[in-house]
Amino acid sequence: MRSIFFKNRVVYALDSSRLPYSEKWLRLTSVRQVISAIRKMQIRGAPLIGVAAAYGLALEALRYRGSDAEKLKNRILKAAEELRLARPTGRNLSWAIDRCLRVVEEARTVSDLRKRLLEEAGRIADEDVETNLRIARNGLELIRDGDRILTHCNTGGLGTVEYGTALGIIRLAWEEGRRISVLATETRPLLQGARLTAWELRKYGVPFKLICDSMAGYVMSRSMVDKVLVGADRVLATGHVANKIGTLTLAVLAKHYGVSFYVAAPLSTFDLATKPQDIPIEERDPSEVTCFLGRLVTVEGVEAINPAFDVTPPELISGIVTEKGILQPPYENSIPKAFSENDR
Amino acid sequence: MRSIFFKNRVVYALDSSRLPYSEKWLRLTSVRQVISAIRKMQIRGAPLIGVAAAYGLALEALRYRGSDAEKLKNRILKAAEELRLARPTGRNLSWAIDRCLRVVEEARTVSDLRKRLLEEAGRIADEDVETNLRIARNGLELIRDGDRILTHCNTGGLGTVEYGTALGIIRLAWEEGRRISVLATETRPLLQGARLTAWELRKYGVPFKLICDSMAGYVMSRSMVDKVLVGADRVLATGHVANKIGTLTLAVLAKHYGVSFYVAAPLSTFDLATKPQDIPIEERDPSEVTCFLGRLVTVEGVEAINPAFDVTPPELISGIVTEKGILQPPYENSIPKAFSENDR
Repeated sequence: MRSIFFKNRVVYALDSSRLPYSEKWLRLTSVRQVISAIRKMQIRGAPLIGVAAAYGLALEALRYRGSDAEKLKNRILKAAEELRLARPTGRNLSWAIDRCLRVVEEARTVSDLRKRLLEEAGRIADEDVETNLRIARNGLELIRDGDRILTHCNTGGLGTVEYGTALGIIRLAWEEGRRISVLATETRPLLQGARLTAWELRKYGVPFKLICDSMAGYVMSRSMVDKVLVGADRVLATGHVANKIGTLTLAVLAKHYGVSFYVAAPLSTFDLATKPQDIPIEERDPSEVTCFLGRLVTVEGVEAINPAFDVTPPELISGIVTEKGILQPPYENSIPKAFSENDR
Repeated sequence: MRSIFFKNRVVYALDSSRLPYSEKWLRLTSVRQVISAIRKMQIRGAPLIGVAAAYGLALEALRYRGSDAEKLKNRILKAAEELRLARPTGRNLSWAIDRCLRVVEEARTVSDLRKRLLEEAGRIADEDVETNLRIARNGLELIRDGDRILTHCNTGGLGTVEYGTALGIIRLAWEEGRRISVLATETRPLLQGARLTAWELRKYGVPFKLICDSMAGYVMSRSMVDKVLVGADRVLATGHVANKIGTLTLAVLAKHYGVSFYVAAPLSTFDLATKPQDIPIEERDPSEVTCFLGRLVTVEGVEAINPAFDVTPPELISGIVTEKGILQPPYENSIPKAFSENDR
């Protein structure tokens, strides 16, 4: 089952913000609706956000009623700039938009624009599924029978088009008969672990237990974790990984306790141009911290900080699983190499 | 304001489980009610639990309608054993019970037992207040103007009789004019940071911001923390510190980022007999993790682990602030020394 698809001029996306309480499908017919869904984290997960953005631009072309291709191109360029700002940290959003804009450049007529944008969005979606399966197959060699894997946030079929990155590896390992078990962090503030990863692992039948984020030190100190496996929202040429807030804490703990720490991400998540200190870290509404499922959990008016991501430095990362294989340190060598092979 | 007191045969204790939503006082008239309040974490914080236990035994003596001192002694011994099991990790509970049982031994009549137990409970409560003020004064030398202090759980007047341990130091530093600020972790699963520490800091006027537990790595990596200051539920002769789940994670992060990590605790929290691997770690109901303020946050039937404490090893601890001064590593020297001075 894909978590996003296009049918009869409508993009359907599973609303992640409502799971597991209800399985509601968003019905999106404009780029504005796509932007809103990304901002509200109804659509989340770097790869899925990229695909949604591509479909958003296609919707913008479909909605245009005129026949002036240049005017439509300008509309799409404007929509693209707004889309880019919907969530600043994840790389796939800009990557997908850039792919779509290259297609826009080549088009000559309005109908050509519509057709090409829709095809490109579909291609990006299809490639995401294929890429995830490759990541899962490449990651399989890391997983041994009996492994107890700690994962963070949600990196499964709900954060991608289908299958997932880190959770895709876990799923394939289980399907291949590895008797693994998972510790899933709840992932405050928005509980993607408790809500989404639990929902997926239950569906796949993988044995798992939920922990609070603060329990990571406890489980590692008691040798209850064989490896940590997480996703990524942006990977730099240096091997720095921006990912869901809390990832860095897990990486420091893993280093301290000698536990392997692996990241799984497609090359579309890589950003070879930005420097670590320049990664934009999205600061979300403090009410996500001071409230829980809409209820205030602290004193009225209390301030909070709410960075949605943190940056894990390469020295804490054992390897990065991509569709091109597992990249090993030093990343300043292995990452450019993966991309030069990509160009061939 | 004391968070526990005795008046007209009734023990009044502020119900921590309802704060900050409502300020409700428990009205306790039996040891059974005290045990229940401790189990439900209506009364929490190692020092406060100790005081409540002492009052609980006094209530048991007050309720006895007979005149047989031996029979009452046996009742109290039995109640003491049940009390000890109410929460196994914190040291002060057993420490206070042992103090009360020494008093019981000396008593000869029922009225003598009542009088002595009530006096002892009152003494333990008074000493707790005095001890906390000494801890605060001793800890003051650690706090510099401008310090940004990260604290975990609640170690204030709500977890002690009055003033608090780690939060007592923060409170005194602020009252003494140090322009400090605090980052308070929310402290899942039961949110003592968001509910109780926020309530206290707001009352004292100390500037603070709330963070999710998972954000500790982020704030330390960005040099937003000058020192970490936490309490303790049990301190061993080796300097191992059992404290609220999540403390170990903070200590590992602090070590990694070169941030000082201080513990504040009265000597009544110290346990010179137990070995680190023998500390009983209370495993609470998994529903505290799978639910949040009573609402299920994951898929129905999901398993969770819920250790209420973790153990931080001495090599991660910069110092332990007690009423006898700040104990420095190596703790196997400084801790016995503090106790030998105590005996003099």
